Amino acid sequence: MENRSLVTIANHSKERILYLLEMAQEFEKRPNRHLLDQKIVATLFFEPSTRTRLSFETAANRLGAKVIGFTDPKVTSSSKGETLKDTIMMVSNYADIIVMRHYLEGAARYASEIAPVPIVNAGDGANQHPSQTMLDLYSIYKTQGTLENLNIYLVGDLKYGRTVHSLLMAMRHFNPTFHFIAPNELKMPEEYKLYCKAHQIRYEEHTDFNEETIANADILYMTRVQRERFTDLMEYERVKDVYILRNKMLEHTRPNLRILHPLPRVNEIAYDVDSNPKAYYFQQAQNGLYAREAILCDVLGITLDEVKADTERLMNF
Amino acid sequence: MENRSLVTIANHSKERILYLLEMAQEFEKRPNRHLLDQKIVATLFFEPSTRTRLSFETAANRLGAKVIGFTDPKVTSSSKGETLKDTIMMVSNYADIIVMRHYLEGAARYASEIAPVPIVNAGDGANQHPSQTMLDLYSIYKTQGTLENLNIYLVGDLKYGRTVHSLLMAMRHFNPTFHFIAPNELKMPEEYKLYCKAHQIRYEEHTDFNEETIANADILYMTRVQRERFTDLMEYERVKDVYILRNKMLEHTRPNLRILHPLPRVNEIAYDVDSNPKAYYFQQAQNGLYAREAILCDVLGITLDEVKADTERLMNF
Amino acid sequence: MENRSLVTIANHSKERILYLLEMAQEFEKRPNRHLLDQKIVATLFFEPSTRTRLSFETAANRLGAKVIGFTDPKVTSSSKGETLKDTIMMVSNYADIIVMRHYLEGAARYASEIAPVPIVNAGDGANQHPSQTMLDLYSIYKTQGTLENLNIYLVGDLKYGRTVHSLLMAMRHFNPTFHFIAPNELKMPEEYKLYCKAHQIRYEEHTDFNEETIANADILYMTRVQRERFTDLMEYERVKDVYILRNKMLEHTRPNLRILHPLPRVNEIAYDVDSNPKAYYFQQAQNGLYAREAILCDVLGITLDEVKADTERLMNF
Repeated sequence: MENRSLVTIANHSKERILYLLEMAQEFEKRPNRHLLDQKIVATLFFEPSTRTRLSFETAANRLGAKVIGFTDPKVTSSSKGETLKDTIMMVSNYADIIVMRHYLEGAARYASEIAPVPIVNAGDGANQHPSQTMLDLYSIYKTQGTLENLNIYLVGDLKYGRTVHSLLMAMRHFNPTFHFIAPNELKMPEEYKLYCKAHQIRYEEHTDFNEETIANADILYMTRVQRERFTDLMEYERVKDVYILRNKMLEHTRPNLRILHPLPRVNEIAYDVDSNPKAYYFQQAQNGLYAREAILCDVLGITLDEVKADTERLMNF
Repeated sequence: MENRSLVTIANHSKERILYLLEMAQEFEKRPNRHLLDQKIVATLFFEPSTRTRLSFETAANRLGAKVIGFTDPKVTSSSKGETLKDTIMMVSNYADIIVMRHYLEGAARYASEIAPVPIVNAGDGANQHPSQTMLDLYSIYKTQGTLENLNIYLVGDLKYGRTVHSLLMAMRHFNPTFHFIAPNELKMPEEYKLYCKAHQIRYEEHTDFNEETIANADILYMTRVQRERFTDLMEYERVKDVYILRNKMLEHTRPNLRILHPLPRVNEIAYDVDSNPKAYYFQQAQNGLYAREAILCDVLGITLDEVKADTERLMNF
Repeated sequence: MENRSLVTIANHSKERILYLLEMAQEFEKRPNRHLLDQKIVATLFFEPSTRTRLSFETAANRLGAKVIGFTDPKVTSSSKGETLKDTIMMVSNYADIIVMRHYLEGAARYASEIAPVPIVNAGDGANQHPSQTMLDLYSIYKTQGTLENLNIYLVGDLKYGRTVHSLLMAMRHFNPTFHFIAPNELKMPEEYKLYCKAHQIRYEEHTDFNEETIANADILYMTRVQRERFTDLMEYERVKDVYILRNKMLEHTRPNLRILHPLPRVNEIAYDVDSNPKAYYFQQAQNGLYAREAILCDVLGITLDEVKADTERLMNF
């Protein structure tokens, strides 16, 4: 049997992405299923990420699976000097699938090469976080009715932001126009601009962030500007209040605009935005549940047709 | 749909309290149910409380629900600066109900005002802990056959003891006579004595704790006398051994007397009391399971009639 | 009802051991069951042991039970000064069975004497770890087709190694020949050699560890040689690379030889051994699942006949 691990979606075809989004849509209709009854899902968090862990554990539970795992690397055998290989081999004896978060880039890839059971990458260092990208895509698709020909504005820390890099790459299939809005110290790295050129993706760069800049946005993707990212703290002090989205900035934006954020936020979206109908970051998090149900099922070999048949059955029940 | 959160029972009517106790009684007959199959219960412990957490998680599991959550605030997004609001909004996407313990007074109230799903307060600072009060009431009801006209002796730390304050207020419907037994530094606060007067509750105060003091008690509610509560450590040294219940003190007490304690105890009940049939604190903890099953069902909109019908069905099965 | 706790298997008869192994075999045929539906298994880890915890939790989940518990003693009531007795009494109110790991020898025994529900010892200090011994026995039985008349080589830390001591004692029924291979500082203690003499168990001692030493082994049981066990660090430096198993040492070993290790390993088995068909330590860990399913069922009063009938039913389904 082919190893169906999900390490990255960078190489996913357009069809594959749309297939997974369609599966997520099925789960939005009916989140509670028995598709994974008697399956064990292991959630191994070598670094903490409560949000991602709870989302995956909810997805597993709503599908009927049971969850085992750990959340604190200090209490694992890793702290006795055990290698990642041995930990993965051990857990493969217990679980049908391993969802793992690791602080090292490449950890999920490596695990997928040695594990007898499929691996789902729930974030490996600054590298990949495919389920986040899937829920971002699903949120865009749901709110815009399409992924094609959109104006997508990425705001904040574009240098270190794993989620914006992955989103940019996944969108290459859909003819987007990007706007990169960031302070100079946190600009979109050269490699991703080269990537855009190689894939005929239009982009513009801005350091300003105001009403005019975002007037044509369909999607405004906000990210945290963290003090610890700055080498020059003077620069941080200068820009820290510039990349904050405030409700009044939204007055003249497009009606279809939706605001996304991978969360947790600190202060980069003012609280008065929360009640604006264009704020979508909490629903976006909810979409994570459906996206992760799709991922767990897909990785365990359940097809879209099977999920649809299951929906049908539940609807008629 | 009305938000059915349980933040406090201070304003619960007599009928409402008796209604919940009757529901708890149903769960004592049959703890294992399928009433919450396919529900997800989130247990968010912003401060640790193993006892309360395990009790709620058992209640959820015995009702057929699945549990997600965290027990260690250090490993949550809160430590990245996320506000309580965002954490609650996030978890509302995943769970059907949130059981939360928080170190700040008012946290559960606030959460209940913003969350799309119901909140159960599992303790907020020195403020409320309604499920503890419900299990205390249930324990009194079970052991005395009634809540009416009882002599209730509260012993130990009456100044900071959240459980005794809540019990006092909940008992106002049932014509109790209270006896407050505490060292001077830990006396029942003036506000609760005023509360008694306002509600025609009789009370007496004692600093002595011995055989004579407790001769007429129906309920002896012990609490911990913690060193850190004392500003004057000389005073602590003087009183620390005074408020310890020892088996020989129970010889001439009423036959219906039962000893309660919210647990964990440290040394305020001597171990030779444990085998005395009047010791009831371990069964009291067990009652917590039934009380919490009732609370979870009630908050999720399941009525006493539905629970009774379910009992009937299980009995005939 | 008799308390069916499993504290140690040191006094288990030959028949009892074989009975449990036969039950484990049933679970290997079909790990997923409904035998413990509606049961609550508490896993109380007063010291961390991710491997043992995940194995027991998987066993519980695969049998249909739900799991509650804690993994971090710092977040429990123990840290408020609660005694082990009170913690056990509390959890007995919630769970149908308690699996406990404790840092103190004798803790499981004590718990089994006071708890109203059965206790499974998942390791108490340097004392007993019966489920580990059961999975070791099951691994030997599976790979050799018998437990009788085997040459068993124990390598590494034979002084402090809890697992090797328990295995030695459990094997007394099966006429083994032992070889103890250890540095002088970590030799098999005198009491276990006396135990061998008292039970007519043959043994030889070696300080060398090489191709010749292990030529006749049926089972090679490797253990960690930990720096912190040595009083003389010069001695540690001298021996630390001696007790490492390397793939080339296995060339002339018996075809039926299998290599066991309780895991986690640090460096005492070179990684090139992993792909050798004689390496069995990862499958050994998997056997832990079946052994623990057998233990949980047995302790909860489910008989081998019942398990066999259940297998039959599942096979025909």
